[in-house]
Amino acid sequence: MCYPSIKDYIKGHAERIERELAACLPAEWQVPAVLRESMDYSLMAGGKRMRPIMVIAAAEACNGSADAALPVACAVEMVHTYSLIHDDLPALDNDDYRRGRLTNHKMFGDATAILAGDALLTHAFFAAARTARQHGISADRVLAVIEDLAEYAGPRGMVGGQVADMLGEQGLTKLEELEYIHLHKTSDLIVFSLKAGGRIGGATERQLQALETFGTNIGLAFQIQDDILDVVGDASKLGKAVRSDEKMQKVTYPYFIGLDASRQKVKELTEQGKEAIVRAEIPDPERLLQLADYLMQRDH
Amino acid sequence: MCYPSIKDYIKGHAERIERELAACLPAEWQVPAVLRESMDYSLMAGGKRMRPIMVIAAAEACNGSADAALPVACAVEMVHTYSLIHDDLPALDNDDYRRGRLTNHKMFGDATAILAGDALLTHAFFAAARTARQHGISADRVLAVIEDLAEYAGPRGMVGGQVADMLGEQGLTKLEELEYIHLHKTSDLIVFSLKAGGRIGGATERQLQALETFGTNIGLAFQIQDDILDVVGDASKLGKAVRSDEKMQKVTYPYFIGLDASRQKVKELTEQGKEAIVRAEIPDPERLLQLADYLMQRDH
Repeated sequence: MCYPSIKDYIKGHAERIERELAACLPAEWQVPAVLRESMDYSLMAGGKRMRPIMVIAAAEACNGSADAALPVACAVEMVHTYSLIHDDLPALDNDDYRRGRLTNHKMFGDATAILAGDALLTHAFFAAARTARQHGISADRVLAVIEDLAEYAGPRGMVGGQVADMLGEQGLTKLEELEYIHLHKTSDLIVFSLKAGGRIGGATERQLQALETFGTNIGLAFQIQDDILDVVGDASKLGKAVRSDEKMQKVTYPYFIGLDASRQKVKELTEQGKEAIVRAEIPDPERLLQLADYLMQRDH
Repeated sequence: MCYPSIKDYIKGHAERIERELAACLPAEWQVPAVLRESMDYSLMAGGKRMRPIMVIAAAEACNGSADAALPVACAVEMVHTYSLIHDDLPALDNDDYRRGRLTNHKMFGDATAILAGDALLTHAFFAAARTARQHGISADRVLAVIEDLAEYAGPRGMVGGQVADMLGEQGLTKLEELEYIHLHKTSDLIVFSLKAGGRIGGATERQLQALETFGTNIGLAFQIQDDILDVVGDASKLGKAVRSDEKMQKVTYPYFIGLDASRQKVKELTEQGKEAIVRAEIPDPERLLQLADYLMQRDH
């Protein structure tokens, strides 16, 4: 498929991902109706689908196919979605709205929301294990992707970041600790997405290393941009309340270094990430580079 | 290692499993201290370790080694432990004690308990993916184990059973629905354990099928025995309050068919399970058969 601009590329792939996600839980499976409904509710709630698009873009950059990358793309979106459901719970961030709709627990109750999150996390590994094999990718390669997913999403990865975020309060957290939170809570799943795409496409170790550096940098830039938008963004575009970090006394980059220096940091990180990709001679890097610029300029 | 009786066999392997579990989160990993502590608290809280022992017993029955089975044995215990942590939460069963100690959320708070559960579930896949490979088992075989784990623990498996259990109340649930709950909430992880052991040992399709039948039957028997012990058991042996099902208005086998018929059902299921193993000519079935009898006779 030929997409003239990065916006078309994102839109086109997001639509494919939506279709695949809608079918990810086989219709013939006997699953309690409320569980299926609750999983679908959050999985199909829109969202930018940035992580699955990164899986596909990285696969294509390394001469792999979008088809082969699609199952793992769905897996990472399931992991991202479960993390949002659990993060929104009253025991954690206690959010009533997400992407302009009621959060999962407001719709289905806390118990079902907890279990729907658990089910999505578990099913992500099913999707990755089963369907990636259907595209003729070797078991060794799929296993490396699964190992990465468990590492980047687990206790030393995303969940570690969530715990650190929960513990962090304004006045108590240093800038280095904030970086730990952002790197794990946000960058880790982005790094996973890029490396998984690379592995599916057959990237060399050097290229995987470059994808990791790229992901770490644009992941951190992505989260700082989120922090900035929470201060200066438009609630209707964002689909959620602004200035929530201030209200929740959350530490952020703007809190520590101000808005201008935060914007500068987003630019620098993006450039550093792009350089890593260029230096590693990834076969077809254009979409990845465009994606990095697109993320830096987004307003939602 | 030679163990004279099934009790010695269980004790010996439980000790090996304990040592392996204690080391399952690499010491050099940078994980927030409270997360590590909370994961360890529940993982190292004792328990019968029946599921990991089943992985090992099934592997040995199919001429595999306990060493090769140990990582997957730990993985299934992590999944079991996460399910208990989430199940005990105020939004679900709201239990204060488990195995004679405070439940995870009573010790660490709801937020940490939710995230510790998430971390254990995720890390189970890491343990299964990474360490099984270290014992020279083919990537294809490890991948089949991971696919099974995600299926038996996921929305059509254990989590589906949890949701159905949460919805079930006395007077509203039929015996067939209770069977669905027991089969998924309890049997599925037991079936996984036996099949995973079989796969590691190199079982044929026919033998895997027999292990599945065995697991379904003794899993259901295991849960009915739990229901019986909740009525007639000794709280000090069980390490938890008795008659909680009645208080929580939970449906159980004794509730539907009475204690005597429930005991008879446990016996029948155990015999049917054992027959399947014998018929499939599993190379060395003795420990599996003994394990089934041991579970039927247990008082805690």
